[in-house]
Amino acid sequence: MMRKLRMGMIGGGKDAFIGAVHRIAANMDGLIDFVCGALSSNPAKAAESGRALFLPEDRIYTDYTDMIVKESQLGADRRMDFVVIVTPNSAHFAPAMLALEHGFHVVIEKPMTFTLDEAKQLQQKAKEKDLLLCLTHTYAGYPMVKQARAMVREQRFGKIRKIWVEYPQGWLSNLSEKDGNKQAQWRTDPGQSGKSGCMGDIGTHAAHLAEYISGLEISSLCADLSTVVEGRQLDDDGAVLLRFNNGASGVLLASQVAAGEENALRIRVYGEKGGLEWAQQEPNTLIVKWLDQPTQLLRAGVGYKEPLSSFATHNLRTPGGHPEGYLEAFANIYRNFALTLQARMNGQTPAPEAADFPGAAEGVRGMAFIDNVVRSSASEQKWTTFEV
Amino acid sequence: MMRKLRMGMIGGGKDAFIGAVHRIAANMDGLIDFVCGALSSNPAKAAESGRALFLPEDRIYTDYTDMIVKESQLGADRRMDFVVIVTPNSAHFAPAMLALEHGFHVVIEKPMTFTLDEAKQLQQKAKEKDLLLCLTHTYAGYPMVKQARAMVREQRFGKIRKIWVEYPQGWLSNLSEKDGNKQAQWRTDPGQSGKSGCMGDIGTHAAHLAEYISGLEISSLCADLSTVVEGRQLDDDGAVLLRFNNGASGVLLASQVAAGEENALRIRVYGEKGGLEWAQQEPNTLIVKWLDQPTQLLRAGVGYKEPLSSFATHNLRTPGGHPEGYLEAFANIYRNFALTLQARMNGQTPAPEAADFPGAAEGVRGMAFIDNVVRSSASEQKWTTFEV
Amino acid sequence: MMRKLRMGMIGGGKDAFIGAVHRIAANMDGLIDFVCGALSSNPAKAAESGRALFLPEDRIYTDYTDMIVKESQLGADRRMDFVVIVTPNSAHFAPAMLALEHGFHVVIEKPMTFTLDEAKQLQQKAKEKDLLLCLTHTYAGYPMVKQARAMVREQRFGKIRKIWVEYPQGWLSNLSEKDGNKQAQWRTDPGQSGKSGCMGDIGTHAAHLAEYISGLEISSLCADLSTVVEGRQLDDDGAVLLRFNNGASGVLLASQVAAGEENALRIRVYGEKGGLEWAQQEPNTLIVKWLDQPTQLLRAGVGYKEPLSSFATHNLRTPGGHPEGYLEAFANIYRNFALTLQARMNGQTPAPEAADFPGAAEGVRGMAFIDNVVRSSASEQKWTTFEV
Amino acid sequence: MMRKLRMGMIGGGKDAFIGAVHRIAANMDGLIDFVCGALSSNPAKAAESGRALFLPEDRIYTDYTDMIVKESQLGADRRMDFVVIVTPNSAHFAPAMLALEHGFHVVIEKPMTFTLDEAKQLQQKAKEKDLLLCLTHTYAGYPMVKQARAMVREQRFGKIRKIWVEYPQGWLSNLSEKDGNKQAQWRTDPGQSGKSGCMGDIGTHAAHLAEYISGLEISSLCADLSTVVEGRQLDDDGAVLLRFNNGASGVLLASQVAAGEENALRIRVYGEKGGLEWAQQEPNTLIVKWLDQPTQLLRAGVGYKEPLSSFATHNLRTPGGHPEGYLEAFANIYRNFALTLQARMNGQTPAPEAADFPGAAEGVRGMAFIDNVVRSSASEQKWTTFEV
Repeated sequence: MMRKLRMGMIGGGKDAFIGAVHRIAANMDGLIDFVCGALSSNPAKAAESGRALFLPEDRIYTDYTDMIVKESQLGADRRMDFVVIVTPNSAHFAPAMLALEHGFHVVIEKPMTFTLDEAKQLQQKAKEKDLLLCLTHTYAGYPMVKQARAMVREQRFGKIRKIWVEYPQGWLSNLSEKDGNKQAQWRTDPGQSGKSGCMGDIGTHAAHLAEYISGLEISSLCADLSTVVEGRQLDDDGAVLLRFNNGASGVLLASQVAAGEENALRIRVYGEKGGLEWAQQEPNTLIVKWLDQPTQLLRAGVGYKEPLSSFATHNLRTPGGHPEGYLEAFANIYRNFALTLQARMNGQTPAPEAADFPGAAEGVRGMAFIDNVVRSSASEQKWTTFEV
Repeated sequence: MMRKLRMGMIGGGKDAFIGAVHRIAANMDGLIDFVCGALSSNPAKAAESGRALFLPEDRIYTDYTDMIVKESQLGADRRMDFVVIVTPNSAHFAPAMLALEHGFHVVIEKPMTFTLDEAKQLQQKAKEKDLLLCLTHTYAGYPMVKQARAMVREQRFGKIRKIWVEYPQGWLSNLSEKDGNKQAQWRTDPGQSGKSGCMGDIGTHAAHLAEYISGLEISSLCADLSTVVEGRQLDDDGAVLLRFNNGASGVLLASQVAAGEENALRIRVYGEKGGLEWAQQEPNTLIVKWLDQPTQLLRAGVGYKEPLSSFATHNLRTPGGHPEGYLEAFANIYRNFALTLQARMNGQTPAPEAADFPGAAEGVRGMAFIDNVVRSSASEQKWTTFEV
Repeated sequence: MMRKLRMGMIGGGKDAFIGAVHRIAANMDGLIDFVCGALSSNPAKAAESGRALFLPEDRIYTDYTDMIVKESQLGADRRMDFVVIVTPNSAHFAPAMLALEHGFHVVIEKPMTFTLDEAKQLQQKAKEKDLLLCLTHTYAGYPMVKQARAMVREQRFGKIRKIWVEYPQGWLSNLSEKDGNKQAQWRTDPGQSGKSGCMGDIGTHAAHLAEYISGLEISSLCADLSTVVEGRQLDDDGAVLLRFNNGASGVLLASQVAAGEENALRIRVYGEKGGLEWAQQEPNTLIVKWLDQPTQLLRAGVGYKEPLSSFATHNLRTPGGHPEGYLEAFANIYRNFALTLQARMNGQTPAPEAADFPGAAEGVRGMAFIDNVVRSSASEQKWTTFEV
Repeated sequence: MMRKLRMGMIGGGKDAFIGAVHRIAANMDGLIDFVCGALSSNPAKAAESGRALFLPEDRIYTDYTDMIVKESQLGADRRMDFVVIVTPNSAHFAPAMLALEHGFHVVIEKPMTFTLDEAKQLQQKAKEKDLLLCLTHTYAGYPMVKQARAMVREQRFGKIRKIWVEYPQGWLSNLSEKDGNKQAQWRTDPGQSGKSGCMGDIGTHAAHLAEYISGLEISSLCADLSTVVEGRQLDDDGAVLLRFNNGASGVLLASQVAAGEENALRIRVYGEKGGLEWAQQEPNTLIVKWLDQPTQLLRAGVGYKEPLSSFATHNLRTPGGHPEGYLEAFANIYRNFALTLQARMNGQTPAPEAADFPGAAEGVRGMAFIDNVVRSSASEQKWTTFEV
């Protein structure tokens, strides 16, 4: 019999951005109860945050090790089923590994880890323990991204020839990390963020989106990373020429100094017979272009004679014209993770639509993307082979 | 001390559209537990629906009277705090009245009731019992609608002169009610929907939005309702010329036979110095036009030097470029209702931003709008005074 | 044999807006030579304007009567073939009648005349003399408007049910006529403009567009005109409920006090199977909506497998993605007028695409529209029958 | 005293695309008479084309040498003032050189010549003879491009950091050159087009636009050109990483195999304080983004309190909301060339706004761009220094 799943959270206390997003996403569909948390390494903040979120006192932990160990000792009808890790990148690996070792499924915010090697270790451990590892590549959770992927897979555009993906943001146009902006502080700190700033933070999203929609893999690249704002420690801007494993070419642009831009992830994919365009800020429309027919606007939730892919409709909650957004995309990842976990608990195979959420393999490729891009940017040679 | 609120639901079983939306909205912010339901008048369906939603067996009711009475007998630490009514219009009044009489706060889907008189009775009863009555005029929950209202209130546009509000949908372009479409069946049935179809269903949203943003009231109107699809029992299309209580004029368009339209609610308001435009299908942008300056795109969640109104930011969960949508707008109504109810339980006054959700007064005006529009449409006289 | 046509102009001297537009439109396609003008009733200004436009000294007239009479006495290889009248509305009739009486074809800026009766007289005279009378309803000259008309005519949308046409401008939001704005002065002056301001100036464009695209005629209407800006003599804003001769309903909105709007003419037409939307400010796109298929963006100049109507392509000069605009739409009217006149001079029948330009019949209906709207607005009765 | 200028044309006979565009552009403002042409090397076609364009029989030439020589022998009150060259790239140099040698000013379609060396020779000859050489880089003729350039120049965005320019077209997605498409034939033929296809045809436009708006120069680049369609002789697609002479970075994308795209040139420029975005297919809007203020839509022709640059308004013919397009942008180049030439004939200095049209220097940089891009694409080294 199905039951609600029980979630614990590491990180995500007061003032954290992404922790709150994870909780909303987990709440949305009524499949998950938030039961415990080690929300901050600061005990007072952990307690305050836990209470504000209505956690019972005995499930508010001040230390993730404590939480993982104690929860593992609770009865099967009470202990958390999985743990969510929303700490800075440098603090993903240790709690994730500990959780896996104690038999808990894991949800991790991307990028998966601090180093590629850590990512591979987690992938290995999850496999060994037969546990789910879910990576919240949010943008792959949008219904019209699923529709795009389905149309490419169905060969609607013929062979894919070109992929242009861009991700401009403007929020790091100034040296905000010296100005009290906490998000800026850790994201531009090599000790917390890793060897890349912009490419690690948002370039990985763009790369994942390109591979996810196209079903292709980047095989080589030529990167040009910059640190535009003086005094910054990591790249805040970059462009990458891409080659894919089917011979298609592409370009990936990412910037956090594109002044005046919000979160303008956008992708265009062109094949022999047509192309598609999707922009995260207007996510319910998929623009489909044809060589010899008028451009079509495919809209989330609308019932066409030739219906949207089941991969799109499975991830929708409302009919056409009732816009769903970022939080729903995020919730789709949680919902699919939960449906897959529930199925597994009931000895069932999840539907392919439910099983479609990013995991360790995507996390490893994301970490490899960072490595390859940084290596290429430092090279005087044009092309760098993408190595994992 | 704050605690999560406990919600019961009447209607909204399997296959219902709006019940699921209410549950998502109530779930989203982790302020509300869904504890009991009389989800269908069909006992088997009620049970099946309740289980699928993880309700405990003893809180799955097959009859709303039963639920209200039994819940009122539970301990204060267990019984529901409020009830949500998501049945067809004709079945709003009786459970709402019963709930109020038993001391429960009430959330009702709009339009509030079947007749204007019923709405007034509920308004009176809620006042008498000092209970909250919340009406889910969803579109008033959007942050950029709040921003629009705030800007008008701050006299940014000078005196308001013109309001154009339009609400085209296309889903009733055929006689779908004869084709097994359940939503079409009850919405076009005078016995369940009331004396108007299109104007009751969506015209009321448009009228509320116009009054909410402008802070004005419709004082007279000239309506032209049509039943475009042969065989339909209620209006499916209409246009209304409006006069507001400050002398401004306006037009309200609503149609459910605008083939190819989804849910395209849009409003434009013009004052002496500028105007604004908001479209529900792209809800995170407020277009602000000026007499002598370039048009501005105000975007939800962006931190401008001159910041968005606190009424907008209070209703946002994410930074700029992370689109929120219909479900978040809906959740804002629940969240504000919950914050207000929590404040009241703690003897506090809610913040004005939290107290800003539609209630009985708006519901009564909505029912009056239906009455006046239907009366005007039948009249050969141009203008009909808006009476409540 | 074909030759370039010779054009004379009445009005349109220095500082006039629309005269310059007519000259550009006439120049564009190399079919017309501008040979003479009575560009101003002020002799010095007439001379200065004529020289600036490279008119020969002996073809610069200071008086339209003088011009018409003298040109009629020139040899057939030299005298103007047609005259363009771009004076204020009150000064259309006399020169147009004189020109017709002297055997010249006439192009008139809309609205056709000062009164409906004058329009009928011109229509009668042109017929009697077998001369062309062309009315520059610019917006009917856009290729995608022609495409819209063709698709409606081909029954692509089934029976037309709804027409919404709107024309907001903001340039009269202040009492600019007291502020030295010449365009505002004559357009708000009943002695020069006629019995309506906004409805005569732009409402007529909207009404013509609705009838042109739909192929229907307005049969009755209910108008609400306002003079929003204090001190103004004519209406500057209005809304009109419409009924068409096939039973379709509609709404026409026109305003010159919609602060922040430019020239935002937009029309939406809905039929049984779909609808279309066209906006003058983005004129190269026709949005086509379907009941059960994705919305399509038909774009001017693109070669689709199912090609655009010949009525659209005939009026295009460039391939897709090379935007044509207002001046090209205007030039299309001149080009079609010229092609028709050339064909006639050569004893040929013009192609249907060339013969498609607005003339006296459209002008008479426009003047009748003004009369009916003004009469309806003054009436307390809801519906006024459209009389010509 | 000012007079109309007399234009001759080489190339541009029946069925040619760009010749017709040049004639419309030259006609539009009534400053230029088209007096003679060598419209085709095929005598019958030359004659037929000349007659269809109402050229006098004695000014219809069948050979450009003949035309240049004979026109140079006509009286100063009759002979052409300048010659326009609209033949394929390989046939630009010889007639241009001959015209310059005979004392005629020259207008050339871009790219300027077949080789960089030819371009330098023409530049030198024009200088030596003190003649005007105008290059029709159309997109620099748009008013809002001028506005963009003015704002950058006025330091409105601070130091420029990033330039992204893209130019996707889809018309060469198939091997159309084998399918009777004349435009495709010469443009993909190295013997007529030069050493690059896509980059020469449209990449040069994109590069010019980037340099024109930013006032910067490309200093090094890293190019990746592809021939996507099998059997094609030249590149049909490419991406180029850019470095500018102020340290800014950029990306240039150009493709003629982006299936479903029309002519979608678009540029984004970001500086320290904000950025701008302009798209050729919606050319009357300049999107201006700010670090801490709402995005603004600057619109051609609108009279703001802080007015548009005189460089923008000088190139406009209509008020806001009356869209001007590609032909007007083209006409702006002709108009500025004509105003400059008229000024020079009258011993005057043209206004800076009139003098602002592309010439030999831009042509030489365009040819150098082609050379550098082709060299870089063939190199295994990442960066290639931009050499002229």
